[in-house]
Amino acid sequence: MAERSPGAVGIGVWVDLVFLSDGHATSSRSHCSNSGEEEEIPMDPDAVAKAFVDHYYSTFDANRAGLGNLYQEGSMLTFEGQKIQGSQSIVAKLTSLPFQQCKHNITTVDCQPSGAGGVLVFVSGTLQLAGEQHALKFSQMFHLMPTPQGSFYVLNDIFRLNYA
Amino acid sequence: MAERSPGAVGIGVWVDLVFLSDGHATSSRSHCSNSGEEEEIPMDPDAVAKAFVDHYYSTFDANRAGLGNLYQEGSMLTFEGQKIQGSQSIVAKLTSLPFQQCKHNITTVDCQPSGAGGVLVFVSGTLQLAGEQHALKFSQMFHLMPTPQGSFYVLNDIFRLNYA
Repeated sequence: MAERSPGAVGIGVWVDLVFLSDGHATSSRSHCSNSGEEEEIPMDPDAVAKAFVDHYYSTFDANRAGLGNLYQEGSMLTFEGQKIQGSQSIVAKLTSLPFQQCKHNITTVDCQPSGAGGVLVFVSGTLQLAGEQHALKFSQMFHLMPTPQGSFYVLNDIFRLNYA
Repeated sequence: MAERSPGAVGIGVWVDLVFLSDGHATSSRSHCSNSGEEEEIPMDPDAVAKAFVDHYYSTFDANRAGLGNLYQEGSMLTFEGQKIQGSQSIVAKLTSLPFQQCKHNITTVDCQPSGAGGVLVFVSGTLQLAGEQHALKFSQMFHLMPTPQGSFYVLNDIFRLNYA
């Protein structure tokens, strides 16, 4: 398994869940084995998507500021039609949303390889805000791209509420 | 502008709308100009997404079999959780859906560049089936990738109905 620099630890946390729970890497990149030969380890998009979705929404509901290390400078968020670029601006948007406590309930998760080692994740579910009677329905898509450290980051993120 | 082979005409129809209506190409690839120098023409993801969405849903509603030339052998469709790969299988799925006439109404279209010249398109809207009282809400995402002929094809397609 590739070694990670200290700076990549946060980004790699949710992928570590995949690595550790399954006992094998899900990265699509080549690694040098102990014998020095190149070894291609196939990526499992479903495992990456599941680990990401679990980590993303539990972090969103517990500590939105903690989502920052899932994004990079080139990352894009389109939130209800508003386009935001870069990790700092994205976290500023997410932490400024006009509610304190929320709980996502995930209904469906679909994923496909996007080419070039990326994974597309398409999520639908509901968002329950504290003090509100009715949950809001939402759809969201992510494009996860591999990092040199053997993890993934969010390159694309598009969120929409599904109004009744 | 790159010449198209006869087989690529169908795939290029909706992009031609972008080319012709705006009077300039929206492809991100390099073209050899008459002087023989490489010329980079920036892609406009919004124009590509709008032309695609107009073409895709009007074709779906008028002649689903006509969608086949938007897909290629490596294309993937996840339809209500069912994974289908390849242009022929995807069209077979779409044409076998248990309704004859339908009308899509598009509510939102969001798009972002996906890297490597691709465009991510995220759509929400309603689907009215002939003889049904209520329209169905849906969300759908596409990953459009450039072709060597100067057009785009659908590499990824994920569709979900949003049940109330």
